[in-house]
Amino acid sequence: MSRTVAESEPLMEQETRLSESQPAAAGTVRPGGRTAKVRRAVLEATEDALAATGFHALNMDHVAASAGVGKTTVYRRWGSPVGLVADLLRDMADRSLPASDTGSLAGDLRANAGLVLKTLTDPRMGAVFRAVIAAAACDEECAEALNGFYRARLEEWAPVIKRGAARGEIPPDTDGLELLRAVSAPLYYRFMITREPLGPEHAEQAVRAALTAAGGGVFTRP
Amino acid sequence: MSRTVAESEPLMEQETRLSESQPAAAGTVRPGGRTAKVRRAVLEATEDALAATGFHALNMDHVAASAGVGKTTVYRRWGSPVGLVADLLRDMADRSLPASDTGSLAGDLRANAGLVLKTLTDPRMGAVFRAVIAAAACDEECAEALNGFYRARLEEWAPVIKRGAARGEIPPDTDGLELLRAVSAPLYYRFMITREPLGPEHAEQAVRAALTAAGGGVFTRP
Repeated sequence: MSRTVAESEPLMEQETRLSESQPAAAGTVRPGGRTAKVRRAVLEATEDALAATGFHALNMDHVAASAGVGKTTVYRRWGSPVGLVADLLRDMADRSLPASDTGSLAGDLRANAGLVLKTLTDPRMGAVFRAVIAAAACDEECAEALNGFYRARLEEWAPVIKRGAARGEIPPDTDGLELLRAVSAPLYYRFMITREPLGPEHAEQAVRAALTAAGGGVFTRP
Repeated sequence: MSRTVAESEPLMEQETRLSESQPAAAGTVRPGGRTAKVRRAVLEATEDALAATGFHALNMDHVAASAGVGKTTVYRRWGSPVGLVADLLRDMADRSLPASDTGSLAGDLRANAGLVLKTLTDPRMGAVFRAVIAAAACDEECAEALNGFYRARLEEWAPVIKRGAARGEIPPDTDGLELLRAVSAPLYYRFMITREPLGPEHAEQAVRAALTAAGGGVFTRP
């Protein structure tokens, strides 16, 4: 991940609830160190704000106050609301959950669709996802970070497809990422585009449609 | 369509380039009348602004100036930027293009996917769609209008599925709207969610995946 200018400079503000930690040395970001704690507090406050009021109302001063971090730190390190959203997305990519291994491709894809469904229908996380997708529509840095989040998630789940192909459950030359996209797309489509109700029946249908198409060779590489 | 309070009141401002038209009588909206011309000019200016700078920068005063319509009219009739976007979506729903009739279901679905692809990859319309979807993430009135737009579009294309089923190209009890959603979802997913490149190969794959799943009975009603 590229580092910001602020991360290369010594932290100067001490007006923070986190001041019991030692400031990180210039140019270092230790996990659990002060810089990491400040980032964690600011990204949690950003997520809270996105869940509560969405991207259009995201306010740097409120995030700083809610995180207990000095405004100057937040402005210097993140720059703008889109800087906060982009960093939140990079953090979400780093924290992406490992893929399932249920023993069958259908089982793994059901687990995958179930996770997507659970996230999008969760009142807090659904609102956060709507907000970061809206932010990406408004800003190129957020769009790249959103793309990076989904790339990380797809790569995390790619082994599921390889194992399924090795077990002969789909054609061996299936493009695994295309199959994974086919599972998620119908759920996001209802959630974000057509704004239609989303339930377990749609997750199940998405898995069946993706597996049927894969079995028919639709996702095999040319 | 529900009418706004402003539409039930006589128009009082005359500070407009459209003032050569006669004001509509209170409570009437004649196609081609002054109220309709004002709406057309304001919605075109809204679309221009969304294409140029997105939803987050949509400004009522700029839209009024660019439409050559008095600010007071715009504020009274549309109320806010989200009011403009919601009305633009209602207008887009009314202007939804009729469905294709190529003689085969695959041909009609290819035409459908081609239209979606053309719209989303068009620099102007792609930006407008990103903006209205982002607006819907921020505001419930926009979300309902977005849902209405896609409902109108799906209903417009539903006969394509009925004709395909009558010709025996898919199982007779196929849920046509689900099949149509399956064609669009992968294209919107790349365009709006994962922010990945989108090309004719994805439109073709979406059609093949949807038809294969439909042929396998995935979209038949329970």
